[in-house]
Amino acid sequence: MSVLQGLGRACQINANGTATLDGGRRRTWSEFRERVARFAGALRATGVRPGDRVAILALNGDAYLEYFYAVPWAGALVVPLNIRLAPPELTAILNDAGAVALVVDDAFAAMLPALLPNLQSVTRVFVSGEGAAPAGATSLGAAIDAAQPIEQADFAGDDVYGIFYTGGTTAASKGVMLTHGNVVANQMNMLAEVPFGRPTVYLHAAPMFHLADCAATFSVTASAGAHAFVPRFDPVPVMREIQTRRVTHTIMVPSMINMLVNAPTIGEYDLSTLQLILYGGSPISDAVLRRAMEALPKTGFLQAYGMTELAPVATFLSTTFHVTDGPLAGKLRSGGRAAVTAEIRIVDDDDREVPRGTVGQIAVRGPIVMKGYWNQPKLTADTLRGGWMHTGDGGYMDDDGFVFVVDRIKDMMITGGENVYSAEVENAIYQHPAVAMCAVIGVPDERWGERVHAVVSVKPGRAVTEAELVAHCRTLIAAYKCPRTVSVRSDPLPLSGAGKVLKTVLRKELAV
Amino acid sequence: MSVLQGLGRACQINANGTATLDGGRRRTWSEFRERVARFAGALRATGVRPGDRVAILALNGDAYLEYFYAVPWAGALVVPLNIRLAPPELTAILNDAGAVALVVDDAFAAMLPALLPNLQSVTRVFVSGEGAAPAGATSLGAAIDAAQPIEQADFAGDDVYGIFYTGGTTAASKGVMLTHGNVVANQMNMLAEVPFGRPTVYLHAAPMFHLADCAATFSVTASAGAHAFVPRFDPVPVMREIQTRRVTHTIMVPSMINMLVNAPTIGEYDLSTLQLILYGGSPISDAVLRRAMEALPKTGFLQAYGMTELAPVATFLSTTFHVTDGPLAGKLRSGGRAAVTAEIRIVDDDDREVPRGTVGQIAVRGPIVMKGYWNQPKLTADTLRGGWMHTGDGGYMDDDGFVFVVDRIKDMMITGGENVYSAEVENAIYQHPAVAMCAVIGVPDERWGERVHAVVSVKPGRAVTEAELVAHCRTLIAAYKCPRTVSVRSDPLPLSGAGKVLKTVLRKELAV
Repeated sequence: MSVLQGLGRACQINANGTATLDGGRRRTWSEFRERVARFAGALRATGVRPGDRVAILALNGDAYLEYFYAVPWAGALVVPLNIRLAPPELTAILNDAGAVALVVDDAFAAMLPALLPNLQSVTRVFVSGEGAAPAGATSLGAAIDAAQPIEQADFAGDDVYGIFYTGGTTAASKGVMLTHGNVVANQMNMLAEVPFGRPTVYLHAAPMFHLADCAATFSVTASAGAHAFVPRFDPVPVMREIQTRRVTHTIMVPSMINMLVNAPTIGEYDLSTLQLILYGGSPISDAVLRRAMEALPKTGFLQAYGMTELAPVATFLSTTFHVTDGPLAGKLRSGGRAAVTAEIRIVDDDDREVPRGTVGQIAVRGPIVMKGYWNQPKLTADTLRGGWMHTGDGGYMDDDGFVFVVDRIKDMMITGGENVYSAEVENAIYQHPAVAMCAVIGVPDERWGERVHAVVSVKPGRAVTEAELVAHCRTLIAAYKCPRTVSVRSDPLPLSGAGKVLKTVLRKELAV
Repeated sequence: MSVLQGLGRACQINANGTATLDGGRRRTWSEFRERVARFAGALRATGVRPGDRVAILALNGDAYLEYFYAVPWAGALVVPLNIRLAPPELTAILNDAGAVALVVDDAFAAMLPALLPNLQSVTRVFVSGEGAAPAGATSLGAAIDAAQPIEQADFAGDDVYGIFYTGGTTAASKGVMLTHGNVVANQMNMLAEVPFGRPTVYLHAAPMFHLADCAATFSVTASAGAHAFVPRFDPVPVMREIQTRRVTHTIMVPSMINMLVNAPTIGEYDLSTLQLILYGGSPISDAVLRRAMEALPKTGFLQAYGMTELAPVATFLSTTFHVTDGPLAGKLRSGGRAAVTAEIRIVDDDDREVPRGTVGQIAVRGPIVMKGYWNQPKLTADTLRGGWMHTGDGGYMDDDGFVFVVDRIKDMMITGGENVYSAEVENAIYQHPAVAMCAVIGVPDERWGERVHAVVSVKPGRAVTEAELVAHCRTLIAAYKCPRTVSVRSDPLPLSGAGKVLKTVLRKELAV
């Protein structure tokens, strides 16, 4: 069982159907497989061996998808790199992974001089794209054209597919080892939830290095659907691509959905083919969902909660629960219910299950749980103690099995002795019509221990005062949860590669 | 990963929702789990140990579903028995499996005196149902009521869930070992195809001992749908149940669909809730499909091709291909395309893949493939050679990846959904004193899919009628295996150089 099986199926049932649509290029599934086998041949020809790590630093595109299959085809492991990281962070990851080869695209070729001198194991660099390869690098396109296709490698389900470094928004990066079995298990959980059975055109709108996008990548291929790409998320190119390619499915985070549905030119595009937006990273606010349902009346929404360590989806909030009234309403702030083969429980500090409705740590068991952290046996043993993945996320489960993620445990504030979860406060603030983005953090406070502080970015042409926002929140949540101080700005908030607000950066800006 | 995980999920997300609807009894998922844990406790209390085999001989009902979960809960293996078999066939299977316990329902309690004297390992007999347990047996209901619930057993994916017997008394009888991983893999393939996501009421209309019904059983539970039952297939009770329970999904074989849609009273029932009929065993004929689409305009049809050794589904013919004209027509005689995690190829006698359109043997690889045949290492090694399950079925694959089953290499027929091996029927016929030679073949039949037909050559100076031969067979083998039609002749049968009856010539003579 390997991720390559899905590629084989696509070629068997849809050989002449579309695999990739990237700019002016369209490739069929048999052309795609041929390139993958040659790409693997090119890696092998430069001495890449089974078990080696091959990293990539690139924007979205067909080459990225080929990489995801060519590397295992050659028996090696993928290491997709976060495109937002600075050279020293990338260097640290490449050295930690012991990567022997690196693929970069045109956009990142300029970063090579800053990277190469400090790399300890990378001896081969490939540059994809149209430009000429710089000194010390090989043109990937030319290497693929020159290479002989090789036979695909065999894998057991427990063999590692890749090492995925977590964003590091809070702590030092960790390399998450996901097996072929993990990725396929997630693929199957996803397919039980998402009807990719009809002709599918999936748009890679979120960054492909991130496992959120990978969650769908392998499901789409195994269903023989088509992959379309935008290099990076930007509302106008996304809308253009949806219209041109007749995109049926895509993945975003709520902040991207928010940008999309509030784009001034949204009315100029035909987005009616879009059946589903998968999203994750955080729940969607009522206000954003209402606007989205208005702007995209034919589109369903599906939330996934999870993390890299879970390959990545632990729970799904199905389309049917994306309603703001009626008998199915009231679950929108949850991450949904356990994916089909995921076991979820909420535990206390002694790993005992807590009653429904009680906040504890979310723990997960099943075939989606990572093999462990690369070269970190102690951290692995602790995180996977008792056979359960301890997510580090605080949450509770309601009587219907819906998991409400109240926040990253470390992101919870304690103010005046009361626990306050950022997500809840942010949800209140988002309901103010002037708010474009917001983030709530705890800042040290003489009187309260921690003070609830909000950073708010306003929509163009709108204004709001601290006092107005606090008064607005008081109408929605308990007084002790309301921000005591607010920074209002017109700039957007800093986002991680996965589209999450970088609270560490905000804390640094506030010097807290 | 075990089949019990799906039960856990049902209890987590739908604890107070309906698990089973059987006659006047409705049980919720938490009640169901409680009974399963007590049923397991009752088994444990009588000394059933992890790894033991616990067989069942029963009509469909909620007790059967409880059995499917209680036996693994206690760490033991299920052995569901074909209800059509004769006592000598059942005895052979129970002894081969080394079953230590047997569960029978009221309908089969009368068979116990014919079974018990010949059983070598069964030391505990439970009788489910309302009647009093006969001598030597225990009332299952009373045992469950008296038992303490026990903790559920843990399984790895590679642990055996059960032994499922195919064939009958002769060499054709094989115990197929399916692991928990096999069953869950099939469950996930099924869920990628069948939208059990909406509220589901699944009617067990086909016999539950057969893996065709099991294919859906575990998927429905993992989706927290409801199970409804008819003791055995019969059009009127099925229609009544669909109307009363508002059944959404069921499983049949084409002969059952044929009986249902041609039932004289079909107009008296509201069958509009029925979204999907899964079927297998053979393709559906255009005529039956047309009649079915007319009689059940709101119902979709989904064909599955497979076998017990494949847990059981290898290919699906999706609902969209159940059309008699339009661009998607023309696939109706096929078994469909590979299930998501199944790899299918058509091979020649040297296990080399043949070109599309060429008939060869259908071979399957992937997580659905059985662990092997119980106590038959040589047969297992041969059947699974090279890591592929050799189905023994002849077929070809078209350019779109659709698999057409053209011949059962194993000389097996499927009649009314039941496998019948020619050799076994011929063996019975040969025991008649007037028979010189015989050959049994399957001939196409509107009602049964295939009909068991015997061609018999009589000894010089002897005579025998069709009715006499059928009556003779009935004393030796299960009724469904007996020939439905017989051609009696005095000429010898056509033989190959090696002295084998040339069935291809007989088929040509019969124009089938």
